[in-house]
Amino acid sequence: MAEVDVREVGPRDGLQAEAPISVEARVKLIEALVDAGIIHIEACSFVSPKAVPAMAGAAEVMARVPRNAGLRYAALVPNLKGAEMALAAGVDELTVTVSASETYNQKNVRRSIEESVTQVAEICKLAGDVPVDGIVSFAFGSPYEEVRPEDVAALGRRVLDAGARQLTYADTNGSASPPSLERLAETTGGIDGLHLHNGRGMALVNAYAAVQLGLRRFDTSVGGLGGSPFADDAGGNLATEEFVYLLDALGQKSGIDLDALRKIALMVTEMVGRR
Amino acid sequence: MAEVDVREVGPRDGLQAEAPISVEARVKLIEALVDAGIIHIEACSFVSPKAVPAMAGAAEVMARVPRNAGLRYAALVPNLKGAEMALAAGVDELTVTVSASETYNQKNVRRSIEESVTQVAEICKLAGDVPVDGIVSFAFGSPYEEVRPEDVAALGRRVLDAGARQLTYADTNGSASPPSLERLAETTGGIDGLHLHNGRGMALVNAYAAVQLGLRRFDTSVGGLGGSPFADDAGGNLATEEFVYLLDALGQKSGIDLDALRKIALMVTEMVGRR
Repeated sequence: MAEVDVREVGPRDGLQAEAPISVEARVKLIEALVDAGIIHIEACSFVSPKAVPAMAGAAEVMARVPRNAGLRYAALVPNLKGAEMALAAGVDELTVTVSASETYNQKNVRRSIEESVTQVAEICKLAGDVPVDGIVSFAFGSPYEEVRPEDVAALGRRVLDAGARQLTYADTNGSASPPSLERLAETTGGIDGLHLHNGRGMALVNAYAAVQLGLRRFDTSVGGLGGSPFADDAGGNLATEEFVYLLDALGQKSGIDLDALRKIALMVTEMVGRR
Repeated sequence: MAEVDVREVGPRDGLQAEAPISVEARVKLIEALVDAGIIHIEACSFVSPKAVPAMAGAAEVMARVPRNAGLRYAALVPNLKGAEMALAAGVDELTVTVSASETYNQKNVRRSIEESVTQVAEICKLAGDVPVDGIVSFAFGSPYEEVRPEDVAALGRRVLDAGARQLTYADTNGSASPPSLERLAETTGGIDGLHLHNGRGMALVNAYAAVQLGLRRFDTSVGGLGGSPFADDAGGNLATEEFVYLLDALGQKSGIDLDALRKIALMVTEMVGRR
């Protein structure tokens, strides 16, 4: 069985809705994660600091993180301008979000899904050899409208057609369940990557069900921090330390140091002033 | 598929290690649980109020709880004297704990496992037609010594031979995992009932894995409260509201009102002064 790719999104999704912490603290967090054995990190997002103050200074973060061989850094980009800045900062992977919920897409980025897909194409063209990961948000449900697996699968295909190298389905508001994961995996013919939230305490159960279904790429956030600033009921992200504990229990080596992770979880929750 | 038997242990295991609340508040909690559709409740334990102050007044609790047809009340009894009091108070089921960890059994009840099994036999004889549930604690690991599935299975057989009507395997320190659950189910030839703790955030994952293995009886505690006063790393119990949400997501009807449960979870955490 292939190793599981744990993409740590704490420095981005974990921090984006929290009170801003310094570039220095964010770099320290990333260094600690690398020391713990994490090799795939969403380090920041190149968004307007007015819209998301906690993500200000993304280029400085990228300039200061360790760049050992084997480490891969992703950055979220909301538009072409963000993509330009991210590429200039030397990121290894761009993540671009398109919502499966038309209403949310309008609310979140003030574009139709169609316009977002067009933009993904522009970003992919600009990115050239740098891979673009298309994140399909609200893939398991939306507070605004019904989201059907067929529609999610069709949107995923369009995002791939637009040039994305891979897809990540996001349970943005924590409404996924083992049966709905299985349905989406069947409808799409397989899920590349999964981004889980903990709205109803189900993130780890869903991760376990997904591992059983054969999924090999997961977004996690150390300390379980995170949630969209635009979706109140998101709950935190799937906690890295809980997921790594589960992988260990399932006998799947992640190469990640669980004790170190738990210390980082304490550190980061203190950094942002949570218990 | 048979319905899942959710035994709510909040009024006992949930409260036993918290600052004591009044008999009145405990009866109010039980009434609310009954109103939410719970029909099987561990209401109290007949232990020394000096050892466990939060369980003082067990007989008064039993005298005041609703006794509609279909409702079943269990009580934990640590010894023959407790069993006498519980039977006099009209409980429908006795729970008696024997630890799979010799060291813990000595620490917890100051008896050898052998002496505990002998005592189960005495309690079963006294109980007559009232069923005794033998709880095998530390069935998945102990902080003190290795606990092997073969030994747990052998102990379970001895507890049944002693007259217990059924067995519940307890993950007292939250060290179970889907593979260790599967191992114990294979070794024992099937698990009647499961009592899960959340030491490492795994209670709900383990419950999901157990449902998949065909287990139909679970102890849960509203709000996830609980933990042994003698096992620091126990974490809370499997939270009733999370388990019922999972059952709903799996399409398994429990007949329990999830919204009502969530309100009770808030109420009980306030009662004991937790957030």
